[in-house]
Amino acid sequence: MSSQTLTDTVQLTPILEASRRAAVDLAAAPTQVKNRALAAVSAALRGNVPDILTANRADLAAGRENGLSGGMLDRLMLDEARIEGLAAAVEQIALLTDPIGEVVRGRSLPNGIRISQVRVPFGVVGVIYEARPNVTVDIAAIALKSGNAVVLRGGSAAENTNRVLVGLLQQAIGSSGLPAESVQTIDPFGREGATLLMQARGHVDVLIPRGSAGLIQAVVNQSKVPVIETGAGVVHIFLDESANADWAVEIVHNSKVQRPSVCNALETLLVHRDAAARLLPGVLAKLAASGVTVHGDARVREIFPAAVPATEEDWGTEYMGLEVSVAVVDSLDDAIAHIRRYSTGHTESIITNDVVNAERFLAEVDSAAVMVNASTRFTDGGEFGFGAEVGISTQKLHARGPMGLPELTSTKWIVRGSGQVRA
Amino acid sequence: MSSQTLTDTVQLTPILEASRRAAVDLAAAPTQVKNRALAAVSAALRGNVPDILTANRADLAAGRENGLSGGMLDRLMLDEARIEGLAAAVEQIALLTDPIGEVVRGRSLPNGIRISQVRVPFGVVGVIYEARPNVTVDIAAIALKSGNAVVLRGGSAAENTNRVLVGLLQQAIGSSGLPAESVQTIDPFGREGATLLMQARGHVDVLIPRGSAGLIQAVVNQSKVPVIETGAGVVHIFLDESANADWAVEIVHNSKVQRPSVCNALETLLVHRDAAARLLPGVLAKLAASGVTVHGDARVREIFPAAVPATEEDWGTEYMGLEVSVAVVDSLDDAIAHIRRYSTGHTESIITNDVVNAERFLAEVDSAAVMVNASTRFTDGGEFGFGAEVGISTQKLHARGPMGLPELTSTKWIVRGSGQVRA
Repeated sequence: MSSQTLTDTVQLTPILEASRRAAVDLAAAPTQVKNRALAAVSAALRGNVPDILTANRADLAAGRENGLSGGMLDRLMLDEARIEGLAAAVEQIALLTDPIGEVVRGRSLPNGIRISQVRVPFGVVGVIYEARPNVTVDIAAIALKSGNAVVLRGGSAAENTNRVLVGLLQQAIGSSGLPAESVQTIDPFGREGATLLMQARGHVDVLIPRGSAGLIQAVVNQSKVPVIETGAGVVHIFLDESANADWAVEIVHNSKVQRPSVCNALETLLVHRDAAARLLPGVLAKLAASGVTVHGDARVREIFPAAVPATEEDWGTEYMGLEVSVAVVDSLDDAIAHIRRYSTGHTESIITNDVVNAERFLAEVDSAAVMVNASTRFTDGGEFGFGAEVGISTQKLHARGPMGLPELTSTKWIVRGSGQVRA
Repeated sequence: MSSQTLTDTVQLTPILEASRRAAVDLAAAPTQVKNRALAAVSAALRGNVPDILTANRADLAAGRENGLSGGMLDRLMLDEARIEGLAAAVEQIALLTDPIGEVVRGRSLPNGIRISQVRVPFGVVGVIYEARPNVTVDIAAIALKSGNAVVLRGGSAAENTNRVLVGLLQQAIGSSGLPAESVQTIDPFGREGATLLMQARGHVDVLIPRGSAGLIQAVVNQSKVPVIETGAGVVHIFLDESANADWAVEIVHNSKVQRPSVCNALETLLVHRDAAARLLPGVLAKLAASGVTVHGDARVREIFPAAVPATEEDWGTEYMGLEVSVAVVDSLDDAIAHIRRYSTGHTESIITNDVVNAERFLAEVDSAAVMVNASTRFTDGGEFGFGAEVGISTQKLHARGPMGLPELTSTKWIVRGSGQVRA
C-alpha cells in the first residue's frame, strides 16, 4: 500500500463513521418518516431538472471526448422523461411495505423465555457501480426505505451528474429530519476510494457491485467486506422433444430479442435431437428475421446453414447483443450436463409438454431461477412483484435471484426473560 | 504463488469435482435416504470405538510432545463416552425436520405464471476448523441432513483421528446408497489445502471457519469464497438503574461462570451509576467467590477495592476465562455507546424493570442476540430449539446468531408458465 493510499484511509474513515451514525438513526426511523423523506426526494428531482441536466451534459461531453461507446453514453444520459421516471420510481418505493420490524419467526422456550427473530437493516451498505446515474437514485431510495445508510462509488464518467444527484438527495433527506449522511458518495476519492471501501470490514456491512462482469469479479476478488454478487447471466433454454412449437418460437424470440443487453436475456439454446428438425427452422428463422446471428454446432448448421460455426468459447459467452449459441443435444441428461458446465446460475428454462422432464429440469438445474414454458425475461424484481430492483443475485449466500427490499436486510434475535439462567 | 502451490491446485481440483458430483446426488436424495445414512454413521461410530481411540491416542501423544495446552488436549481427546455422545447427536440430527424442499414463499403473477421460492442445499460447503474431532462428525452429519457435500480441513493435531472418522463416515454413507464423497477431507494437503479451498470460488459455495478469532480472521481476509463468520463474542450485560438485585447477581454469575470458555459468556459488565452502590457489592462478591478476577474502572474500584485497574485493552478483550471487565456508566445512552464501540455484535443483555429502557436497549443495540433479564448463555442453537449446532454467526449476511439446518441452505425460484412471454 502506498503512502498516498494510507492518507486516503485517514480521509475515508470520517465518511464511514458518519454513515454509521446515520445508520443508527435510520434503523430507528418510523416508516412514515422514511416515506416523507422519499417524497422529498421525488420533489427535489422534479424541482431541479435544469441543474441535473447541466451536470449530465458536462458528463456526456467528457464521455464523447473520451470515446465512450454509444451504449455507455445512452446509459449515462438523463433527459426530462428519465428524471421524471426516477422521481416516479422513488414514489413507488415509498408505497412498498416496510421490511423493517417484520417478525420472521419466534417461539416460547420451555423455560418461559420468549425469542423472536426480527428483520433489521444491514446498517451501512456500500455500492460500487458504473456510469449509470439512475442507479444512484434507485439504490439511495431502496436503502432509505430499508433503513440502511449507503455509501456510493459511481463510475467516474458520471461524476458531475452524481454529485448533483447526491447533493439533492442529501438536502431532501436532511429536510425530512433524517441524517443527510444517509446517502454519501466517495467519488472524489477515485479508484482509491473503491479499494478502501472493499477493505472497510466493520465499517461497511455489505458491498454490492453492479455493472459489468469485470467490475463484479474485481469486487468479489478484492473485497474483505461481505459481497452480494449480482449479474452475469449465460442463460439457457432447452427445447425438449415434446416442446410445443409455437411456445418454442415465441419464448425463444422473446428471451433473446425483447431486450438483448440485459442479464436475463437468452444466450444459449439447446434442442433435443429428436425435435431439432421439427423446431429449429422456425425458431431460428424468427431470430434471424430480428437480426440475430446464430452460432451453431455441426448438427445445427445441417438444419440451418446460415449459422456460423460455434466455438468452445461461445458456450460460455454472455453476448449481451443479437447473437445466440445453439446446440443439438442427445437427451435431457445431456442438456442438464451442458447447463451445469457453462451456466452462470442465473436463469434456465425448459420448453416441454412432458411433466416428468419438466420436474427433473426444475429439480436438477441449479440456478437462481428455473422455469418451465416461460420466457427467461421474467427473472426480474418488477415482474416478481417486488417493486424495487436492487439487482439479481447469482450467489447462493443470503439472496438468490431478484433482490427486493427484504434482501437488503438482516435479522436479530430478541430474547425476553424474567431472570432465567442456564442450568 | 510457488510452483509447489500450483501443483497442489492440480491435486485439489479432482476432490472438489467429486464433491460437486456428490452434491448433485445429495440435493436429490429423499429425506428417508439421508436419515438412513445418518443411522449408518451412528452405527459405524459405535461399532469402531477401538479404532477411533487408537488413532486419537496417537494424536494425543503427538500433541503432548508438541506442547499443546491442557485445554487443547481436552478438546482433542475422545473417549468411549464422547464417541457415544457423537453417535447420539447424529441420531438427533436424523430426527430434525428436513429443510430441503420447504416452500418459503410463492404467488401467482397477473399473467398466470406461478412462482415459488424453494429451499435447496448450498451444494459444496467447506469447513476450516481446529483440532476438535467432534466437529468432524457434527458438521458432516449436519451437512448430510441439509443435502450438502462437505470438504473438511481440520487441525493437523487431530489428523489421525479425523482420518479414521472420515473413513468411517464415507463407508457408512456409501453403504446407504449415497456417494461416499459426500464427506471428504483435505487434511493431507496441509496448510496449502486450506489456502486453496479459500480460492476455490465456483467449486465451493460457502466456507465456514470454526475456531479461534485468529483462524476466523485469516479465513475472512483471504477467502474468495463467500464466508459465514462465526464466533468471537465480547459479550456485555448492562445493569440498569432499576435492575432487580437477585436477577442481577444470578444472571451475571451464570453468564460469566457457567462455562467461561465459550463465545456467549459474559466479558464486560456495565452498571448504571445510580445502581452501582446497591448492586455491585453483591454481584462482584459472588463472581469473586467463583474465582473471577474483576478488572474495574475507577468508580468500580471505589466500591470493590479487590478489582484490578481496567485498561483500555480490557474493554475489547474476550477473556474466555474467569476474568471480567466492569465499568460504571452514567446512563443507558452511555451503556449503549460503550457497547456500540467495543462489542463484537454477538450477545448483549440488559437487566432492568423499566419497560422503556428495555425496549430501547432491544432496539438500539445492534447484535445478533439482544436480551432483557436473561443470561447471555442462552444464545445457543440447542437452547433456541434448533437441535444441531453449526456455529453462531456474527455477520449480518445470510445468517445471524445461532445457525441451524436452514442456515446451511440457499433457495431457488421455480417458475411455471404456459407459454408466457414478456410484453
